[in-house]
Amino acid sequence: MQTRRGVVLQALAAGGLVAGLPHAVRAADFSALRIDAARLKAELEGLSAYGRPAGGSFADGVSRVAYSDADVAGRAYVVGLLREAGGAPRIDAAGNIRVRREGTVPGLKAIMIGSHIDSVPGGGNFDGDVGSLSALEVLRTLNAAKTPLRHPLELAIWSNEEGGTIGSGWAAGVLGKDALEGKGPTGIRRADGLRKIGGDPDRLADAVIPKGALAAYIELHIEQSGLLEKAGVPIGVVDGIVAIDEYEVEIRGFANHAGTTPMPDRRNALLAAAKLIQAVQEEVTREPGRQVGTVGHLEVSPNARNVVPGLVRHTIELRDLDAPKLKAIAARIQARAKAIAAETRTEITMRPADMDPPAIATPRLQAHIEAAAAGLGLKTMHLPSGAGHDAAMLAFVTDMAMIFVPSVAGISHSPHELTRWEDCANGANVLLQTVLRIDAA
Amino acid sequence: MQTRRGVVLQALAAGGLVAGLPHAVRAADFSALRIDAARLKAELEGLSAYGRPAGGSFADGVSRVAYSDADVAGRAYVVGLLREAGGAPRIDAAGNIRVRREGTVPGLKAIMIGSHIDSVPGGGNFDGDVGSLSALEVLRTLNAAKTPLRHPLELAIWSNEEGGTIGSGWAAGVLGKDALEGKGPTGIRRADGLRKIGGDPDRLADAVIPKGALAAYIELHIEQSGLLEKAGVPIGVVDGIVAIDEYEVEIRGFANHAGTTPMPDRRNALLAAAKLIQAVQEEVTREPGRQVGTVGHLEVSPNARNVVPGLVRHTIELRDLDAPKLKAIAARIQARAKAIAAETRTEITMRPADMDPPAIATPRLQAHIEAAAAGLGLKTMHLPSGAGHDAAMLAFVTDMAMIFVPSVAGISHSPHELTRWEDCANGANVLLQTVLRIDAA
Repeated sequence: MQTRRGVVLQALAAGGLVAGLPHAVRAADFSALRIDAARLKAELEGLSAYGRPAGGSFADGVSRVAYSDADVAGRAYVVGLLREAGGAPRIDAAGNIRVRREGTVPGLKAIMIGSHIDSVPGGGNFDGDVGSLSALEVLRTLNAAKTPLRHPLELAIWSNEEGGTIGSGWAAGVLGKDALEGKGPTGIRRADGLRKIGGDPDRLADAVIPKGALAAYIELHIEQSGLLEKAGVPIGVVDGIVAIDEYEVEIRGFANHAGTTPMPDRRNALLAAAKLIQAVQEEVTREPGRQVGTVGHLEVSPNARNVVPGLVRHTIELRDLDAPKLKAIAARIQARAKAIAAETRTEITMRPADMDPPAIATPRLQAHIEAAAAGLGLKTMHLPSGAGHDAAMLAFVTDMAMIFVPSVAGISHSPHELTRWEDCANGANVLLQTVLRIDAA
Repeated sequence: MQTRRGVVLQALAAGGLVAGLPHAVRAADFSALRIDAARLKAELEGLSAYGRPAGGSFADGVSRVAYSDADVAGRAYVVGLLREAGGAPRIDAAGNIRVRREGTVPGLKAIMIGSHIDSVPGGGNFDGDVGSLSALEVLRTLNAAKTPLRHPLELAIWSNEEGGTIGSGWAAGVLGKDALEGKGPTGIRRADGLRKIGGDPDRLADAVIPKGALAAYIELHIEQSGLLEKAGVPIGVVDGIVAIDEYEVEIRGFANHAGTTPMPDRRNALLAAAKLIQAVQEEVTREPGRQVGTVGHLEVSPNARNVVPGLVRHTIELRDLDAPKLKAIAARIQARAKAIAAETRTEITMRPADMDPPAIATPRLQAHIEAAAAGLGLKTMHLPSGAGHDAAMLAFVTDMAMIFVPSVAGISHSPHELTRWEDCANGANVLLQTVLRIDAA
């Protein structure tokens, strides 16, 4: 918290101009504004009721999977809060909850903020919720203080983020009608889910935000990794959302009797997989950097105690901001796979399955986040986002930046997910101050 | 094939006495007898019709799983052949088809021969069938030639071998009533299956062969490995059926987001498993010998492309004739697991799940097999059986030995399983001659 004196001193030091108001008044307005930390906490607790395990408490996390009844109820709760905050929420065709606050300078593009409130099954109460309700706090704080912005302010609660940034993907025009038929992890056909939450699968195009139509997109989110907490830094300035290279590996050996097949005669697909899993680890960690590589899914056939495995299929997922670096790592893994195939007398194919390009944050917006945090006396640290976010979709149509707040022990997608209330409030204030600085710039 | 002259020379060289007959007559009888190779082939082909895939041929293998309708039909076919051969087949309480041929010397214990005719799903036409129909040939050949044996001859077609040597396990008293409730791989409750094939679950004890009640048990079987074929040797003299040590391994790491969890912070259960699978390979092959070790079954949790695996469960199966050697290998693997757990910051438990002791063949009986083969001009080779067999159960109650014939490419439990007709006939003749030699000894 700041003293009144501190606010005045900051106000004198700051610059900027609100339309029709003298310089000094405008400056005082933007640096003094704070969100209401207690209200943010109360609303996060309020939202947690929708999808909470029966008989559980806030600490038991939430299952508010997109298109579920809990999702519908949670969305209704947030729509109510947005109305209370003076907004006029509408549901776009892609199921996103949208609010627009007009600016004072005609012709300026909107600054957009937002996140999501759907969760994974057995998720926590911070992933998406902190960014969504902080965006609500920004709207409410600006309205309560009757602070005009030069730019329009757009707020979006994106639908079905955990199912693969679906609502924002449609809004950014990255996804099309094809995606309506799929189900993804929600288990519900997206066209049906969309109707359930008030979207309109027949008019998806209406939800599209044309490239260049926005001034910027800023998203606050929990870090989901432990870097900020380890470093004792409250605010992360995201350099970008990593590229994801996915590969599907198939290893063909020969299934045979585990008792009668001598060791030298075996063509053991699981032994080859074991060597390849280690090769992935070695090639990913061979050079400095924050790149990660994971074999997360693996299936053995026939998968019987007494049969030498004849077939293994597994995934390889590589992530880094630097896409060419990922290609180089994949090439080295490919070479290792070839050697392992020869050594184990198996056939190994490694097929590219998917490739998400990196979404790089805009330095100008990152500078605004840093300045906003500095103005609040909060240390910052640059870091990549290893997880995907709606911001990666918005990056297709506008400049983008993200603010991260610490996750205790780096745990997420779990009831144990935790961001301290003070960190939530800090993040929301940095979001507010960043919006004000972008508006003033 | 042997010339008539060869037979006579052998006869003159051999010894022994059939009750009431002079030395030379007895010698000529036993070395000249041959099974009918063409009839054995015809009967193997006949049996293959029961459980053959619809519209398939002999080459398409067989699914004659114990207690299935195909098993019932196949058993009826064999019972018919046994009657034709002059036997009086009965079904014992454990579902085994049994025939007894009396001997000429009162008080001598029976020589037992046999195998099984049930198959794995998608199996071949040689595993079990060759030994079963060769035992039938021995009975028929002896009866047709009106050759009296001093000992009674017992023939057994054991029920449900592929489900875990169940019928022979009951007959040897190794399994009890507890096993009636289980299903095993057949998917049918054994008590129900037993009734279906004419056994009597309420009188299991009647099927038990008391320890010491038999003179010997000899089983002919296909090798199921490629050693004989590779060496170009038609007859294998089995040194014993290997011990099987089974372990269940559980590796606990920590499931976390594959994008947001830095490589040094991971506690990756699948990476630990990969290292342990290689350790199993290395420790098993570290010393000379025919021991084998297999990780055949492995499950990953949560097994998602984008989650660092938090839990892996897998089996380790070790086999060798030398049980203390297996214990030493397991201890080395256990030590490797401890080091891997420390290195990967996982918890690894390796729990003994099952332990089948080795069944060692009796040298006296092995010598008879070697002499029988030599008498037929057939080379022999000593080797272990890596697979389990009914003979391992019979070893609990009597002296035991096994005769192996080559499996092309070592393939078994597959429609591609193949033992050449000539090798089948050789095996049956060695079985016949071995019985005659044991009888004469």
